[in-house]
Amino acid sequence: MPYPYSKINEDDINYIKKVTSPDRVWVGEDIKKEFYHDEMPEYGVYPPELYVEAVSTEEVSAIMKHAYERNIPVTARGAGTGLAGGATCKYGGIMLSLMRMNKILGVDKQNLTITTQPGALLTEVADAAAAEGLFYPPDPGERTASIGGTIITNAGGMKAVRYGVTRDYVRCIEAVMPDGSIMNFSSNVVKNTTGFDIKDLIVGSEGVLCIVTELTLKLIMPPKFTETLVMVFDDIKPCIETVPKLLQTPYIPTAIEFLERELLEIVERCLNKPFPVPEGNDCLIVMYDASTKEELEAAQEQAANIALEMGAKDVKICNTPERIGSVWSVRAAILEGMKADSQAQEECDVVVPRAKIAEFVTAAKEIGKKYSIRVIVCGHAGDGNIHTELLRQNLSDEVWETNTKACLKELYAKSKELGGQLSGEHGIGNGRLEYFENFISDRLYKLHKDIKLAFDDKLILNPGKVIEFE
Amino acid sequence: MPYPYSKINEDDINYIKKVTSPDRVWVGEDIKKEFYHDEMPEYGVYPPELYVEAVSTEEVSAIMKHAYERNIPVTARGAGTGLAGGATCKYGGIMLSLMRMNKILGVDKQNLTITTQPGALLTEVADAAAAEGLFYPPDPGERTASIGGTIITNAGGMKAVRYGVTRDYVRCIEAVMPDGSIMNFSSNVVKNTTGFDIKDLIVGSEGVLCIVTELTLKLIMPPKFTETLVMVFDDIKPCIETVPKLLQTPYIPTAIEFLERELLEIVERCLNKPFPVPEGNDCLIVMYDASTKEELEAAQEQAANIALEMGAKDVKICNTPERIGSVWSVRAAILEGMKADSQAQEECDVVVPRAKIAEFVTAAKEIGKKYSIRVIVCGHAGDGNIHTELLRQNLSDEVWETNTKACLKELYAKSKELGGQLSGEHGIGNGRLEYFENFISDRLYKLHKDIKLAFDDKLILNPGKVIEFE
Repeated sequence: MPYPYSKINEDDINYIKKVTSPDRVWVGEDIKKEFYHDEMPEYGVYPPELYVEAVSTEEVSAIMKHAYERNIPVTARGAGTGLAGGATCKYGGIMLSLMRMNKILGVDKQNLTITTQPGALLTEVADAAAAEGLFYPPDPGERTASIGGTIITNAGGMKAVRYGVTRDYVRCIEAVMPDGSIMNFSSNVVKNTTGFDIKDLIVGSEGVLCIVTELTLKLIMPPKFTETLVMVFDDIKPCIETVPKLLQTPYIPTAIEFLERELLEIVERCLNKPFPVPEGNDCLIVMYDASTKEELEAAQEQAANIALEMGAKDVKICNTPERIGSVWSVRAAILEGMKADSQAQEECDVVVPRAKIAEFVTAAKEIGKKYSIRVIVCGHAGDGNIHTELLRQNLSDEVWETNTKACLKELYAKSKELGGQLSGEHGIGNGRLEYFENFISDRLYKLHKDIKLAFDDKLILNPGKVIEFE
Repeated sequence: MPYPYSKINEDDINYIKKVTSPDRVWVGEDIKKEFYHDEMPEYGVYPPELYVEAVSTEEVSAIMKHAYERNIPVTARGAGTGLAGGATCKYGGIMLSLMRMNKILGVDKQNLTITTQPGALLTEVADAAAAEGLFYPPDPGERTASIGGTIITNAGGMKAVRYGVTRDYVRCIEAVMPDGSIMNFSSNVVKNTTGFDIKDLIVGSEGVLCIVTELTLKLIMPPKFTETLVMVFDDIKPCIETVPKLLQTPYIPTAIEFLERELLEIVERCLNKPFPVPEGNDCLIVMYDASTKEELEAAQEQAANIALEMGAKDVKICNTPERIGSVWSVRAAILEGMKADSQAQEECDVVVPRAKIAEFVTAAKEIGKKYSIRVIVCGHAGDGNIHTELLRQNLSDEVWETNTKACLKELYAKSKELGGQLSGEHGIGNGRLEYFENFISDRLYKLHKDIKLAFDDKLILNPGKVIEFE
């Protein structure tokens, strides 16, 4: 085992300044506090010893070669918008920012791809594709994420029902290994059975296997038509049971989001405007994209009929940009609303088989009650990815901490019992380490360690995340 | 290094008979010769020492535990329809057939999945899905493949343009590790960021990491309408340049196949019936699926217009099952036709960026000429996966062997130069070992070895395939 790591000394600082540039290296107290944590400081606040902004793959390689020789931990960093405590220097060492490697290198209209450095923002990549009449579908809530961050965490988002997750759009990856080697995983091809599928292993590996320095992503043609339906029900059961029925039609929904009235009210208070559909306790927001008007109409008619047959109180069809916007703005304001409505939040983003959502939601409410924690459930019903929000209201620090842990433990156990997984999109990072270790079998945990060692034999890359070596 | 492996002795035979059943174990000369090779005996003929047909995951686990302790190599075997010399006992030992583990365990209409043992045939899985009104899209030419075989080789096929490859349909995997541990990789969920994406690494790993014992596969709703267009051109350039244009419309083709007139004539002779479109030297067969008639018509009209603008001599629309069948029967008979038309065949199934197909095809013809080998090019133009067939005509054994090797070497180099890969669907197995080692960097080859060791520290699982340890 390589612990303890070497501490950074003057020679290291000088070397890194030499292979990069002195004005892109910060040390100790000069490092901004925002780099101590990601969007969840609850999952750890760790000062880097050195913070460097690389501008090229060669610089990343030079830094890694040095760190490898000297046994210094390195954590790559994008925009820092992660929700798992992933991109932090848990064991000190170097924080290597990729945010200056932000060039979009080109859209290839022949191959329908975009090639980009990892520091470009997701929104910039999507815009560059759109400027060429093409479409990059992955759309996690956080549009200010770096594209590299979305790849290394396999970001999901609402539109995964129709379009899949980030992994489905990664054509090839250039990356730097912990020893500084520059690697190419696959190339700009549609199919590949040339050796192991290492590319897909890297996607979602949370920065513990290698550092992504260039990406080529698949683009598709944009849909020509879109619309959104709001379906409201009196009860959760028929509401959730509508979901698989919507998926059993020839028209694949783009998104199916589930919200409770309790949550809608929180967001209404926060935005100070009413949700367009006042009835019902449980609500589905369903989006359809289509390439012809007829397809959209057929999809909409079938979906509305299914909802009404299942007992929906109302189905509202939103087909103007204004109406569609007013519905989705509510969905977008959930996190903000919950923050305004509670003193603290924890969240778990389990994913369960789609048919088990109702069962999980009911159980989650019960578990919350048991621990005096307000549990709000919402999220991606179309793919079984339930954001279960734990809100702190009138609890002491100690009780909140103890009860949250106990509550999460039971929520993860319930997900497992239902054939689900611990995380659908947010990942393990530092925040879910202990839950992850208990969630999977000892043998599978060992396999994770062995895979980590296959890439990173000195354990210097983002150590202490996803898995922990004792 | 674990070489040399232990030879199987009487105790081993008795133990394996005990943990399985004596009537499912064969030894030495009693093992059928068909198990010495796959569909490419050119890539190696190796007698197993022991052949056993397992009926349960527990049996597979018990066999592996024993083999692990005793250091005996084990190769899992499906239907033996592979084209890379993959499922053979290169270093002797045990051939473990999964063909009696052929139960389809159920179609889940709520989650749109099918769960099956690996020995069920691809066609049985597709039929079971269809019986419930659902659709399993992966469709490699070989429908008698076992479903496990298609997963472990990540089988591609013609419809990958619209529907993707096998990997895109694997929801979760139960597998037995080389040490006998039974593992579950993911579960029946749509999204998952719970640790490393090991499931996708296993898909296409050619049986060298673990033995797949149960699978849950994604199903989709079947398309309601389908039709096929035949586009013929005088010249390859405009023919191939039509491909990206077809992909830049809102209507994604299901398949885009490329055939030369030379090949059409071979198949016409073989089937003794004419291809429905007599004109032109280069031909695209384009399939569209759609969920509405309007979408199909819009797709067809746009595609025909694009082809004519690109200079197609004719575009024939086939929209009855008979006409569609007559076109695709020609495509299906290619391999048979070429076998009838030559004394021996070699093939390479490189995949190149879609925009580079014309360049590769032209170069392949030149390379063939240089070595007096007739090169026929056909295949999946929609995804850049070119089946380049090398046909032996009037060459001595020695010249054929030397020239084929030299020719393949140049073809792979050309693919690499164009940003392509060595294999689009058939894999490495034993037949492409040396080409693979030269195709990728030393560092990437080492990473393959380290990943192999992370799963199989004693190197007992299908040794000598994909990578070779010296």
